[in-house]
Amino acid sequence: MENFEFESPTHFAFGRESEKRTGELVKAFGGTRVLLHFGGGSIKRTGVYGKVVASLEAAGVWFVPLGGVKPNPREALVREGIGLARREKIDFILAVGGGSVVDSAKAIACGALHDGDFRDFTFGKDCKNPPVVKSALPIGVVLTIAAAGSEGSCNCVISLEPDNLKRTITGDRLRPRFAVMNPEFTFTLPPYQTACGLVDIFAHVVERYFTPSRDVRATDELCEAVMRTVVAESAAVMKDPSDYSARANIMWAGTLAHNNVCGVGRVQDWSSHGIEHELSALYDCAHGAGLAVVMPAWMEYVMPSGVSRFARFAEKVWGVAPGDEASMAREGLSRYRAWLKSIGMPATFAELGAKEEDIPLLARNLGLKDGQTLGSFRKLATADVEAIFRLCV
Amino acid sequence: MENFEFESPTHFAFGRESEKRTGELVKAFGGTRVLLHFGGGSIKRTGVYGKVVASLEAAGVWFVPLGGVKPNPREALVREGIGLARREKIDFILAVGGGSVVDSAKAIACGALHDGDFRDFTFGKDCKNPPVVKSALPIGVVLTIAAAGSEGSCNCVISLEPDNLKRTITGDRLRPRFAVMNPEFTFTLPPYQTACGLVDIFAHVVERYFTPSRDVRATDELCEAVMRTVVAESAAVMKDPSDYSARANIMWAGTLAHNNVCGVGRVQDWSSHGIEHELSALYDCAHGAGLAVVMPAWMEYVMPSGVSRFARFAEKVWGVAPGDEASMAREGLSRYRAWLKSIGMPATFAELGAKEEDIPLLARNLGLKDGQTLGSFRKLATADVEAIFRLCV
Repeated sequence: MENFEFESPTHFAFGRESEKRTGELVKAFGGTRVLLHFGGGSIKRTGVYGKVVASLEAAGVWFVPLGGVKPNPREALVREGIGLARREKIDFILAVGGGSVVDSAKAIACGALHDGDFRDFTFGKDCKNPPVVKSALPIGVVLTIAAAGSEGSCNCVISLEPDNLKRTITGDRLRPRFAVMNPEFTFTLPPYQTACGLVDIFAHVVERYFTPSRDVRATDELCEAVMRTVVAESAAVMKDPSDYSARANIMWAGTLAHNNVCGVGRVQDWSSHGIEHELSALYDCAHGAGLAVVMPAWMEYVMPSGVSRFARFAEKVWGVAPGDEASMAREGLSRYRAWLKSIGMPATFAELGAKEEDIPLLARNLGLKDGQTLGSFRKLATADVEAIFRLCV
Repeated sequence: MENFEFESPTHFAFGRESEKRTGELVKAFGGTRVLLHFGGGSIKRTGVYGKVVASLEAAGVWFVPLGGVKPNPREALVREGIGLARREKIDFILAVGGGSVVDSAKAIACGALHDGDFRDFTFGKDCKNPPVVKSALPIGVVLTIAAAGSEGSCNCVISLEPDNLKRTITGDRLRPRFAVMNPEFTFTLPPYQTACGLVDIFAHVVERYFTPSRDVRATDELCEAVMRTVVAESAAVMKDPSDYSARANIMWAGTLAHNNVCGVGRVQDWSSHGIEHELSALYDCAHGAGLAVVMPAWMEYVMPSGVSRFARFAEKVWGVAPGDEASMAREGLSRYRAWLKSIGMPATFAELGAKEEDIPLLARNLGLKDGQTLGSFRKLATADVEAIFRLCV
């Protein structure tokens, strides 16, 4: 087991009607002037917006709304939010939505406390040497999509235009102070978006599970526990979007998958996320759908470097009977692909709207210089990334 | 899944040489005048005390030592600590030791901020209506025993004299601000104490696992993950006390078992802990040893009320092949008992030094009035508790 430092201080208020706690929690964490951040109109149609506003008003908390966050949240709106937060002397950012809204809120929370240009203190001068963020306004979340795990995580991903790059900001100060999680708020998600969330949650565990670290049984077991939960609950939620039990277990699994309780004490990988981010940056496809294409290809490519781990994955997550490790490993990957198909996810570049001829550009956008590599389970150079993209075609 | 609120804000610094972070962490969490709380002489013999003092001195943090905490920590020393904390204007309590030291530190942290008598605001006027604690001095931990999970938990247990009662204080303010966890510090634990820790960690999960709640797959899976980890690592640590990997996995499992990440969304039970506390209060036996006697008896007694859950426990934790549920359930209990025996734990009242004729007194000490019950998986009246004690004879 590797040495680690870990904290996950977020206060989780989970369950039916938990949104009624929103105003009270904002106040408890010091919020008096709130930027209420959200996406498109869906939270107004579903009534979530009205419930949150009612809770803020009941608590006597002043707020200013800023909607318009799109999937793969954009730098432009973050900059608008930073300006608004400074002008209005905002002291708390409340994100109501899914991962994109939470990520946008985190970037604003970070930017509002820094003088100078947004990119300098988040991604580094050339967008390639991101510092760890040391301060940010406090953030609260009312979650409406189980997927990104941003409600408990220490980072966010922002799309930079016009460069078509996705870049990550990191720091424990970005962990939300609280997250209100009512599984009923996810009942209205369309099947495709629900499935994208399942893929993303599963992938957050995979990126931690495939590790070069040894003797990490405690977190291996946790990773497998969360992956099995996601797979086991997926059929129920795809069949009945209003299955509270399935929605609740998936929602909580989404937090466990990414607050890093499954990742401590182990070197992590994150190649598939890095590779996928270039896809969703260039084609604006859903992150989960991109992962459904990239991650099996990554597994196929790196499997020879760690067959035993893939055999364990096959046995513990997919119920493959013990036997020859190479056969088990292949069978596990086959069952993972079958599961992705069963929940309606794409399997190829074409289904994503991605183009084979863009592969060199996509690989180049990762920005790996000579000698630099991505990942840890197997270290990937640009040529390896291109090879993985080709497996997606 | 039940609605829940959960926070576990403790900052964990885990691994070799993590104790070097102690002084810096005390300062980061606002400590300037520290009460350094510990037990007997063992931390001085092993060098842990010197390392912690060196770290505090390097950080320029003033401290006053208070040693002498015994297993089943006593109210008298807590009262002494409260007086010392008030006189010396202490603003941070640092516990260096195992669960008893951490629990004693928590009680002092709580008492130092309250006027009036210690018992009034912790256990309630008659010691039977404990309020949730709303304020306490900040606490830090340097952990030397993997067992109680108090380094991440929201409560503590104190022995009240001369009443021979053990009572719990609860409140999220009792969660330590940080916990320094160097698995090497547990290398010197004698086998009996190591085994008592294993039993306690396992029991913390069992008390959450056996629940009347339904549809709690995410936390069922986590519970099973932690229980399997403890059992799997136990043989290695009993064979080689200096097995870093086994010590590290057990130490982290001990935190996961009791910071409540395994318990959210489910009604919990805690009967075995309640019953055992009367044993260790009256006979001053080790809590883990008491649990090794009480918990299998509790399982035997309540099994008819929930055979399916016991069958799942048997399959997922003990690897019993699926089949007739009643047979599986019995086989699971049998394997649990065999495991307890394999790590050298007692199985009977006699081995603990407990007396059959004290059973009515022990059951009465739990303080259940007519109509009151203990636990949730099966609700136990005083007569049920007596019956469970008789199964221990």
